[in-house]
Amino acid sequence: MDYPSKILAKAVDEISGLPGIGKKSALRLALHLLKQPESQAIALGDALKKLVTDIQYCKECHNFSDFEVCKICASAKRNTEQLCIVEDIRDVMALENTGKYTGKYLVLGGKISPMEGIGPNQLNISAIEKKLGNTEIKELIFALSATMEGDTTAYYIYKKFKNSGVKFSTIARGISVGDELEYADEISLGRSIQNRVPYNERE
Amino acid sequence: MDYPSKILAKAVDEISGLPGIGKKSALRLALHLLKQPESQAIALGDALKKLVTDIQYCKECHNFSDFEVCKICASAKRNTEQLCIVEDIRDVMALENTGKYTGKYLVLGGKISPMEGIGPNQLNISAIEKKLGNTEIKELIFALSATMEGDTTAYYIYKKFKNSGVKFSTIARGISVGDELEYADEISLGRSIQNRVPYNERE
Repeated sequence: MDYPSKILAKAVDEISGLPGIGKKSALRLALHLLKQPESQAIALGDALKKLVTDIQYCKECHNFSDFEVCKICASAKRNTEQLCIVEDIRDVMALENTGKYTGKYLVLGGKISPMEGIGPNQLNISAIEKKLGNTEIKELIFALSATMEGDTTAYYIYKKFKNSGVKFSTIARGISVGDELEYADEISLGRSIQNRVPYNERE
Repeated sequence: MDYPSKILAKAVDEISGLPGIGKKSALRLALHLLKQPESQAIALGDALKKLVTDIQYCKECHNFSDFEVCKICASAKRNTEQLCIVEDIRDVMALENTGKYTGKYLVLGGKISPMEGIGPNQLNISAIEKKLGNTEIKELIFALSATMEGDTTAYYIYKKFKNSGVKFSTIARGISVGDELEYADEISLGRSIQNRVPYNERE
């Protein structure tokens, strides 16, 4: 497309570099910003720059943090015997929202995915080794996606640390609350009957 | 949602201020930027700031431009007897892509929309007056959306300048190329039979 202004073309080009945003949406967003007070685009621009230059990672769990150690890792109220392995920060937020987990986390920063060229070396697996060596961790909980990549990652970590003396567990797969059995996929339904729980244990 | 980092929260907040982007998508975009080389987010941030601070409007047609007068207005090859009234820059780009129009443009910057609180005073209507007073314009062409707002805007401009001696025209409404008659809406089909054209004039 031929833009009447190089400044506009550059902005459209940069915006459309984001995933899921094409040239047309990018132009729509740029025109939106031009109709708003200047301060909005300036605040957005500054926030994006600050995001990549100023953000830190918690040296304990590798989650994003504004401090050396994040709020969860610094909290004295958390159970230090449990370590939950998650893929990224969104999973930490999702688990925290449930209010059902009181242990600590370790953020891998991805999952093993040969298709995307991500191997174990790109993940924070050495951090697990360090954790297992120094601390009182008794249980390693996998909270990874129920996909081939998630399963591969869990298996890799299990194999690597299976002799370290900790107990391994994984979040339950099964039928989501509100799901009808007839529409559930076979694998989930199969796993949920295999891993059935005593009736009085349910909430 | 409770973000582990204020810098991240601020970025998510600013991104989700854009139309059509919610908090979840904004977080996804922020995490994407954090996985890319820092330079990408910095380039995006700078492009957005530059967009609102450095962009100019062509003093002739009010389109965006990097110069005082845009390429189209500065061109000696364009027909100066025709002035096409459009809503915004996207319409100029769409018409230029057809390659069928050689006249000049005037960008209104919106259309009359009482629902959104946009009246004639917010649009560049005084620019039309200036154009009609000074130049050799013979035809004013409305290329506005086929909506109530578009029609209202065209009618307002027509009423205001109908005694100025120029000819008024509007882009043809009708059946789009590739459309089946049975699925066409009644108004478009009605207009297209009313405004039928001689058979040999078609392309």
